[in-house]
Amino acid sequence: MTVHRTELTPVSFLRRSAFVHSDRTAVVHGERRHSYRELGERAERLASALRTTGLERGDRVAFLCPNIPALLEAHFGVPAAGGVLVAINYRLSAGEVAYILDHSGARFAFVDRELEHLLADVDASALEIVRVDDTGAAGDPYEDFLAKGSPEPGAAPVDDEEETIAIDYTSGTTGRPKGVMYTHRGAYLNALSGALSVGLGPESSFLWTLPMFHCNGWCFTWAVTAVGGRHVCLRKVEPERVWELFDAEGVTHYNAAPTVQTALVADERAHRLEREVLTAIGGAPPSPTLLGRLGELGIRAIHLYGLTETYGPATICERKDGWDELPVAELAQLVGRQGVQHVTADAVRVVDAGGGEVPADGQTLGEVLMRGNTVTKGYFEDPEATAAAFEGGWFHSGDLAVRHPDGYIEIRDRKKDIVISGGENVSTVEVEHAVARHPAVSEAAVVAIPDERWGERPKAFVELRDGETATEEDILEFCRGELAGYKRPAAVELCELPKTSTGKVRKHALRDREWAGRERRVN
Amino acid sequence: MTVHRTELTPVSFLRRSAFVHSDRTAVVHGERRHSYRELGERAERLASALRTTGLERGDRVAFLCPNIPALLEAHFGVPAAGGVLVAINYRLSAGEVAYILDHSGARFAFVDRELEHLLADVDASALEIVRVDDTGAAGDPYEDFLAKGSPEPGAAPVDDEEETIAIDYTSGTTGRPKGVMYTHRGAYLNALSGALSVGLGPESSFLWTLPMFHCNGWCFTWAVTAVGGRHVCLRKVEPERVWELFDAEGVTHYNAAPTVQTALVADERAHRLEREVLTAIGGAPPSPTLLGRLGELGIRAIHLYGLTETYGPATICERKDGWDELPVAELAQLVGRQGVQHVTADAVRVVDAGGGEVPADGQTLGEVLMRGNTVTKGYFEDPEATAAAFEGGWFHSGDLAVRHPDGYIEIRDRKKDIVISGGENVSTVEVEHAVARHPAVSEAAVVAIPDERWGERPKAFVELRDGETATEEDILEFCRGELAGYKRPAAVELCELPKTSTGKVRKHALRDREWAGRERRVN
Repeated sequence: MTVHRTELTPVSFLRRSAFVHSDRTAVVHGERRHSYRELGERAERLASALRTTGLERGDRVAFLCPNIPALLEAHFGVPAAGGVLVAINYRLSAGEVAYILDHSGARFAFVDRELEHLLADVDASALEIVRVDDTGAAGDPYEDFLAKGSPEPGAAPVDDEEETIAIDYTSGTTGRPKGVMYTHRGAYLNALSGALSVGLGPESSFLWTLPMFHCNGWCFTWAVTAVGGRHVCLRKVEPERVWELFDAEGVTHYNAAPTVQTALVADERAHRLEREVLTAIGGAPPSPTLLGRLGELGIRAIHLYGLTETYGPATICERKDGWDELPVAELAQLVGRQGVQHVTADAVRVVDAGGGEVPADGQTLGEVLMRGNTVTKGYFEDPEATAAAFEGGWFHSGDLAVRHPDGYIEIRDRKKDIVISGGENVSTVEVEHAVARHPAVSEAAVVAIPDERWGERPKAFVELRDGETATEEDILEFCRGELAGYKRPAAVELCELPKTSTGKVRKHALRDREWAGRERRVN
Repeated sequence: MTVHRTELTPVSFLRRSAFVHSDRTAVVHGERRHSYRELGERAERLASALRTTGLERGDRVAFLCPNIPALLEAHFGVPAAGGVLVAINYRLSAGEVAYILDHSGARFAFVDRELEHLLADVDASALEIVRVDDTGAAGDPYEDFLAKGSPEPGAAPVDDEEETIAIDYTSGTTGRPKGVMYTHRGAYLNALSGALSVGLGPESSFLWTLPMFHCNGWCFTWAVTAVGGRHVCLRKVEPERVWELFDAEGVTHYNAAPTVQTALVADERAHRLEREVLTAIGGAPPSPTLLGRLGELGIRAIHLYGLTETYGPATICERKDGWDELPVAELAQLVGRQGVQHVTADAVRVVDAGGGEVPADGQTLGEVLMRGNTVTKGYFEDPEATAAAFEGGWFHSGDLAVRHPDGYIEIRDRKKDIVISGGENVSTVEVEHAVARHPAVSEAAVVAIPDERWGERPKAFVELRDGETATEEDILEFCRGELAGYKRPAAVELCELPKTSTGKVRKHALRDREWAGRERRVN
């Protein structure tokens, strides 16, 4: 045993907080409250019960749960047992869930009482299934499972910090979901970055509006625990309930995508908060309207960017001196950029087709590449996809960005979504933003369609706001004032946008339709 | 090159901040200001110039400087060059400095203009000496040295994060100073703990009242840089100047031992600060008087504990819910405890002579043992001392502590200082605290003296406050009301206490005198 070396693992965060912050409230869930001592004991019981039920080092343990205490406990109990957590998106179909359980080779599946239907397609013979009633009381099968275990901490969970702690499946906008492997080391480091970037401490009260299954809650399951902050659980993100908890639980932090944020600020219970709440926004940049409204309510927004492959947040748009004094439209432009690497991440590259760094001119598009301790160690049992993503020793994000003169990057498109019209790159994100500025438009999705003369041109699929009316021609006309000619949509179609279970528009479905009957999907 | 693995090193903190916080002020030194871009370029220049001047991987580079920009730059430039920083205590004698330069095998010595006399005993033929005039302008030999280097970042500084980044020599209260080796990994992790434990962020303004040579400023050289905070340098800790900087530079954080804190709060310029300042106190627990006075001035104190061998802070006395409402005397008792492990440190043990954990009764003394990533990897070129300190796979701190029922530890004595009287342990710290409660007493040091009947008994050496008078008998009489009979001093002697260059009382000198002519130093 080397005196100066201990393998990094987020399990140590809970073991420490269970000891240091023993009497402090760790978890709030409706009427239930657990101190850190209790949270620690529950996680150790889970670990112990998994081991006595036959879990072996490296076995996968699936959880299908909303943001309830059981899923938080799994983030410590499963790795403490030497297992690998597979927290599954419960908005998937039963078929997708069956694929993930099968592909991951999970030996256990813990499933919330409201989600049992998602196991309809599963081969239950290979799997031990435990229902989670979320009562916290005896008789709940999950609680009875915990009762079999010992509350005493077991041995160190890993011999090597680069062992896998979790497999997070991609949302699979194209093809089958891929199993992104997280290491104990990466999770530990990204959690510390998360805590530092939003200023978490023992006095923090963190509201779980972001799904814990989503990149392990961007590693905030571990980050909040590391500092001894309070986890406020939430079965469903109901804006009314969120505003109630903001006040009742003295919430200081929450994370959410813009869509959730928009629903929150639009709620009739929205009111200016007594002390500043900090929110990390990811998934898409906040609009000026959203940013302005958050500010009015006393909520300060930080924009983070990343992918499942980067443990959630890889970059942060750190606010610079003077930004706070800017008009909100200008501020939104700056805050909407994806920014710079997290404190524990390596510098991000933006490279052209030849692999060279693009100039920091805010114009030239390149692909975002990452490497470092908080990049996945690969796709589970998929060496081909791993090799493709890791070509040249860097992770290829598939996102296209520009680099601004101050070094901050700004994502302009997914690589596969970009429209190449007459040799010029047209960012579908830019076109979408322009279309969405039309007052009647709720949301827009732009894809490339084939064009005889230009090769490709953009087409906009548009959802209108409730009660609003606008014709396709109105929107085309509106775009004349917003976009250069070659960027303007060749066509507009009013429709309901097809979306994935995580709320992303399934652009490939739109694209497939437009390119049906062709051999290639580019022109 | 593995995509998901980058060696941890604090050099990455500056490289990131130079990029992310490029225009933000990194360093304030009188009229001088450096942005993070400039700090980054200066550190890279130092690295580059060291390499072109012949520095090879692993070579030691000594710095003998007060808390000036050059010493801060050395914390990044030296490791960026692949070198090992030896920041030397400038309160040592020329002989001690010569010993350290020789023992470390330093190839370079950078010495402040006011400290050149400390090189009087050095064999200058083996050493390249560069004077630091601390002007920041051409003509300053240090600046001319930097001018030889390139401001561009070089390659990754290490192939293995467990390589040595710094050697910090112990103060040597007994025997020769020992060279404590810090790794890149340990420094990185302890810096993140430091930043989290006091809540450092980009808006922080950190005043350098703690010497940077002291455990690399408890790793705050790296911590403040990691978050892009501001370093406010200080050639000398003059209380008047400190109060001026508190206001002028919007200081949010500083670290210091109680002696320095006491001088600060006693200064006539002391005034209540507009916004709360956070101070980490180490070296000794804060007295109730000091804690109360700090609170009145708007300064919140956190008590940290550690040794050179633990990169400075290893434990933190985290405040629990409700403490803030306690009367200051009670609060001081709680805050004065050494607490619990830092977030990146392993749990601390307190063991009896048989190696078993002492009960958490607040009574039973045991030695404090540590292990983990933030414990030294050993003493430089001293395998025997390393083996002795690491016996049984744990670092033996030599400090004796009790563990309280809440798990917090409290140091009661140095192992070698404890008095064993009639078979009972008497904590010299406890006796010192009792004696110091006498209103005329400024400071007390207690050592064991031989006693025919009891084996050993405590004796108190006492300095009186300026202008106060009290006899030895007065103090003996006072102790009757403060201490149980077997703990009371057998004798009191008024004197000036002998101290080391870092201000610690040289108890072994007092003890030597009392035990002169005896073969053993225990009875």
